[in-house]
Amino acid sequence: MNDLPPPTTLAEGKYLRLVARGHWEYAERTTATGAVAIVAMTDERRLVLVEQFRIPVGAPVIELPAGLAGDVIEVEPESLAATARRELLEETGYEAAEMRLLAAGPTSAGLSNEVVTFFHASGLKKLHDGGGDPHEQITVHEPTLDALDAWLQERAAGGTLIDPKIFAGVYLVKLSGKF
Amino acid sequence: MNDLPPPTTLAEGKYLRLVARGHWEYAERTTATGAVAIVAMTDERRLVLVEQFRIPVGAPVIELPAGLAGDVIEVEPESLAATARRELLEETGYEAAEMRLLAAGPTSAGLSNEVVTFFHASGLKKLHDGGGDPHEQITVHEPTLDALDAWLQERAAGGTLIDPKIFAGVYLVKLSGKF
Repeated sequence: MNDLPPPTTLAEGKYLRLVARGHWEYAERTTATGAVAIVAMTDERRLVLVEQFRIPVGAPVIELPAGLAGDVIEVEPESLAATARRELLEETGYEAAEMRLLAAGPTSAGLSNEVVTFFHASGLKKLHDGGGDPHEQITVHEPTLDALDAWLQERAAGGTLIDPKIFAGVYLVKLSGKF
Repeated sequence: MNDLPPPTTLAEGKYLRLVARGHWEYAERTTATGAVAIVAMTDERRLVLVEQFRIPVGAPVIELPAGLAGDVIEVEPESLAATARRELLEETGYEAAEMRLLAAGPTSAGLSNEVVTFFHASGLKKLHDGGGDPHEQITVHEPTLDALDAWLQERAAGGTLIDPKIFAGVYLVKLSGKF
């Protein structure tokens, strides 16, 4: 696409900016340099998920533990794997012996430049209760893999939104032959 | 979250607006009322995928056929299933005998209010070559399900981004026992 004009900033917030390029508009983060999502499996074949109220969608959302690289000024630059370890520990209290890259891809390629990198965390050791940083109110869930689909359907029926990256993450770990 | 202040618009573009609510910022579409993604399977167990250059990520992306509800003024209001039928036909040339709801969820609940609804399209009949509307340059791919993972890995290694909603969609169709 050599005929594309350069991007121009339409507006800049504290965390997000609105960008136009040619006929297209999209959002990008002002500080973060990447996003990670972690498929964390305990030795008992439980998947570690987090639930939090998400202001943009106005509802509680069940998601993979996740976070942004480069948004914590004191610790940057940090690698994506280090970000995944930090976020998993902060949000769920689990330390991972192994953090393995699965795949990366755009979350909504028409809307933003966000690319999320999936990791598989294993060899988990519980260090504390998790819950995120002081700005976050995170509940940790640990359904068994066998009960996962029924449990998510039940939660969805109750009005909680389910992030489809959970399904993508489980697919990717199964594909990698690790459970 | 009763203590949340109302949302305020920081900036409004033609297609996207930047919104602040309390300490949070997010993007929302100005016109579209929903998003759909279609897991379209041919009778020969081929998955119908689309590839297009995506300006926000600056790269070609392989995705499920997808689109927005409510962004075509002449045909709104349209149901999400009708949107899925329209987008599948426009982008891939396939008409679907059955369009079945799978699940819905937020694509990036910290960044935008976008919720995508997944459909399973079956009984496909090719009516034309697809390719999208005049603003889109879409290539249609039809890997077999058995070859899907290897094919996507090969394309990713060549620099094409892979939308993780492909994995989520295949997971959801497999879960529904339809292939």
